[in-house]
Amino acid sequence: MKNVKVTYFDAEGTGEAIRWLLAYGGQEFEDIRVGFADWAALKPKTPHGVLPLLEFDGKVYGQSFAICRYLGKKYGLAGNTLEEDLVIDQNTDFYADVRLKGIQSFWEPDAHVKAVKQEALVKTVYPELLPKLEKILKENNGHMALGRLTWADFVFAGFYEGFKQQSLIPDMDEKYPSFKKLRETVSNLPAIKKYLASKSK
Amino acid sequence: MKNVKVTYFDAEGTGEAIRWLLAYGGQEFEDIRVGFADWAALKPKTPHGVLPLLEFDGKVYGQSFAICRYLGKKYGLAGNTLEEDLVIDQNTDFYADVRLKGIQSFWEPDAHVKAVKQEALVKTVYPELLPKLEKILKENNGHMALGRLTWADFVFAGFYEGFKQQSLIPDMDEKYPSFKKLRETVSNLPAIKKYLASKSK
Repeated sequence: MKNVKVTYFDAEGTGEAIRWLLAYGGQEFEDIRVGFADWAALKPKTPHGVLPLLEFDGKVYGQSFAICRYLGKKYGLAGNTLEEDLVIDQNTDFYADVRLKGIQSFWEPDAHVKAVKQEALVKTVYPELLPKLEKILKENNGHMALGRLTWADFVFAGFYEGFKQQSLIPDMDEKYPSFKKLRETVSNLPAIKKYLASKSK
Repeated sequence: MKNVKVTYFDAEGTGEAIRWLLAYGGQEFEDIRVGFADWAALKPKTPHGVLPLLEFDGKVYGQSFAICRYLGKKYGLAGNTLEEDLVIDQNTDFYADVRLKGIQSFWEPDAHVKAVKQEALVKTVYPELLPKLEKILKENNGHMALGRLTWADFVFAGFYEGFKQQSLIPDMDEKYPSFKKLRETVSNLPAIKKYLASKSK
């Protein structure tokens, strides 16, 4: 895979898992960070009107989960059977569903509507869904699927800070320690540690 | 694959693509249709609090896209390389993104907020995204990816009636004839035609 570029905002968001997977795979890449001022001009030129994008060999791909699944398969972080891949995919999609609830509320422009939505999340939705997510991690040896490291862990960990922020649960680390632990498991992998250290310079 | 069961509501929604893929694969299955009255009792027993579910060999799987990808791989409707699978996945996820915009507005309980959201969709979001979706179909010989039949076509076609309904674009068939055509391409496949005929009895 030559001439690899990742285009995303200067944030973790949905792009960080891609960066981490490339770092894990030992693949050098150009880490393009788009400023919000430049986004309006770039948006119409993207395939789906959104970031992140992965470019390699002159081809541009979008959709972060699709890209993460692809890199996961490339770097030995996928299942060994179709059924194992199905488990990785379903657990990743469930995490996406949970995260989406927070995103919808977080970005709601109407303050009253936002308050109503957030109350429903805190009272009903999160108490149902977050323990289900926690159960998945507990049943999988602290991982998202298959009881071992897969690309789903990169999706979870790379998105986790945004997930925490957008869900407006400031004490998520304390309430669901297995979440924080998975973030640490992935960010402490030697290749990721090295990548993060290089970024912090 | 023995003892196959699909559990979903008595609607097309996100379950129909799974039923069609099983029919395409020549796999008999128990087509369990949950009434809304029974859903409240079933919901806490599901892995993610949502339907559809696919059960086989005593194991239960959730998340419709994950299940469709799995069945697509099983029945020769996937890519031949990792890059081809990435294209299928990204285009399917883009369709999901577009569809989600409509879902969020359609199910908004506050009438005023719903009207504001719908106006934004019709004025800004759909004119940007629907032509992008149409472009994908045109560039792919009427299909969602790879210029040929893949499981992404089943996702598109199986969801299409719901997509039309939830987007509140009653003339979508006329405005985007390639959408309607792909629905017909899939529903006219011999195995799907046979399945639909058996259901209409």
